[in-house]
Amino acid sequence: MTTRDEVITGLKTIPVPGVQRNLVEMNLVRDVSLSDHKVDIRLAAAAIDKETQDLLKSRIEKLADTLDAVNSIHVSYEALPPKEVNKICNVIAIMSGKGGVGKSLVTGLTAIALRRQGYSVGILDADITGPSIPKMFGLHSTPTCSDNGIVPLSSKSGIEVMSLNLLLPDEGEAVIWRGPIIGKVITQFWEDVLWGQLDYLIVDLPPGTADAPLTVLQQLPVSGIIIVSSPQELATMIVKKAVSMAKKMNKPIIGVIENMSYLYVQEIDKRIELFGKSRGQELAQAADAPLLAQLPIDPQLASLCDQGEIERYSSEDIEHLGKFISNLPLKSCTVDSPDCKGCDHSCNC
Amino acid sequence: MTTRDEVITGLKTIPVPGVQRNLVEMNLVRDVSLSDHKVDIRLAAAAIDKETQDLLKSRIEKLADTLDAVNSIHVSYEALPPKEVNKICNVIAIMSGKGGVGKSLVTGLTAIALRRQGYSVGILDADITGPSIPKMFGLHSTPTCSDNGIVPLSSKSGIEVMSLNLLLPDEGEAVIWRGPIIGKVITQFWEDVLWGQLDYLIVDLPPGTADAPLTVLQQLPVSGIIIVSSPQELATMIVKKAVSMAKKMNKPIIGVIENMSYLYVQEIDKRIELFGKSRGQELAQAADAPLLAQLPIDPQLASLCDQGEIERYSSEDIEHLGKFISNLPLKSCTVDSPDCKGCDHSCNC
Repeated sequence: MTTRDEVITGLKTIPVPGVQRNLVEMNLVRDVSLSDHKVDIRLAAAAIDKETQDLLKSRIEKLADTLDAVNSIHVSYEALPPKEVNKICNVIAIMSGKGGVGKSLVTGLTAIALRRQGYSVGILDADITGPSIPKMFGLHSTPTCSDNGIVPLSSKSGIEVMSLNLLLPDEGEAVIWRGPIIGKVITQFWEDVLWGQLDYLIVDLPPGTADAPLTVLQQLPVSGIIIVSSPQELATMIVKKAVSMAKKMNKPIIGVIENMSYLYVQEIDKRIELFGKSRGQELAQAADAPLLAQLPIDPQLASLCDQGEIERYSSEDIEHLGKFISNLPLKSCTVDSPDCKGCDHSCNC
Repeated sequence: MTTRDEVITGLKTIPVPGVQRNLVEMNLVRDVSLSDHKVDIRLAAAAIDKETQDLLKSRIEKLADTLDAVNSIHVSYEALPPKEVNKICNVIAIMSGKGGVGKSLVTGLTAIALRRQGYSVGILDADITGPSIPKMFGLHSTPTCSDNGIVPLSSKSGIEVMSLNLLLPDEGEAVIWRGPIIGKVITQFWEDVLWGQLDYLIVDLPPGTADAPLTVLQQLPVSGIIIVSSPQELATMIVKKAVSMAKKMNKPIIGVIENMSYLYVQEIDKRIELFGKSRGQELAQAADAPLLAQLPIDPQLASLCDQGEIERYSSEDIEHLGKFISNLPLKSCTVDSPDCKGCDHSCNC
């Protein structure tokens, strides 16, 4: 006789179109009951549109053939918004008062690092007016939407991504919105996007300390912040504003990453400090947090980002970053299931 | 017998404390009348505080000794807000959807270039949450204020500067404000700062296409926009959003500047394209505007900026930029005096 676990194993073979993660990973399965050679499955509709609901239904019904002593499977949908379905363990915000120091790059690399450690990872691109994430990951198609929300896109290595650029007809189009609307879009990306169950959601913040960072730090359960800077004193001064904001808002800073620390010129086997001497330690001290990495300027990495192939990049720094973050006892877990791998369960799981 | 012109020549020798430009350059002289060996001078009070008013008064009264057949000078102040006094010929906005491509650097260099051509120049730092200008120019003191406004600070070469960082007790402090407040501060920097008479006001915009750029393009009489980018395709994509915003708002783009185009390594006499092949021409085409400069990454310039000594930098690119801009027939002149040197007077001067 088929067990509930066997049904769930079957459901794990069915991917949700677009995001390419399965029904269980997307936390869409609300109830499975077995009786009289019949299986009843209740799914959350969340952001799944009608067409996809029908497709998933017919695929699930076919599972009956593979299950012992099951004659039929009945699938029903419950109208639940994504925010009732999402179970996100750790929210990490990538922040820097200064523009162009590499927040999006660090966001991408952090997500990749954690994904390589086997975690489920999403990226919420909160840089509404200057979103870089989709291009880095080579994502160009349009996410599917229902009246209740949006299904994110999945990168080649399975990182879920939501960004305003995925919703624009032309990626070069300007989004000329004032702060309150930008704050609303970020809240929507948190509440109305079907993230499913994630160990880590990495939030790419825009520069500055105005609306977007404020909305994220006030409204999302941020577990920790990574501060990104470059060696220039000018940048350090402005990045200290981000540190000051994080402290004022009582959000823990996990660590500091210095980007564009140096350029290695192979012909002369020499490191050139293009933007002056490293100030990583100084900033780490100001932030009361460890210096997690000093990333060089790497023309190969810039080129991979332009090609949408950032996931092909690897370095020791990235590996170290993934291990460091996954070993942190983060505290703002919102998951109520023991499946959560990303935290130490001393939180409210 | 003393003439009105001789009195004005005398007033030109008296600098306004803080800004270090004279009473005439600050457009504070409202009326000069001579009768019976007596001169009456009416000045706009604008942002001048009581103490400074008294100081200026006593200095002006002393002019009597130098003027032929003048027994006494009587000085009175008229309560006029700075916006009634300011006569700004050309407003040029430095814009880029992307952060960290060097908007503030280009703002500084453009101001320096025009100053070296002999023009009177100011910088309005509209990057409220990440202001870089004061540090670049080595400005750390606090501007004087009256109930009616603020007197800007003057750089070593005489460029007037107003930035929020000049008003903060600690330059690393975060300004955690939502968009509408940021818009209000920018409007104040335009209306309540005593700019006096300027040929050019250069506005340093923050990244993005949200509140700050929107406020500047809607509320200030912007004559032209300079778009700043870097060679990375990712940056070009986001900078195109700024181009799209400028076009949607019907503001002319003067030209495009590509920053961080290459690094020259002397040891191997080679240019390294750190961020990929130049896309300056591509962007210029998208903007329907000329490519004004391709600036290299110059560690010496970065270091001068960190030391507050950007005005010591010189290069052919900068000289060319100053000549190019000063030859443009810009159209949004707000000056009603023929003293204006910055425009072709086909505007409303």
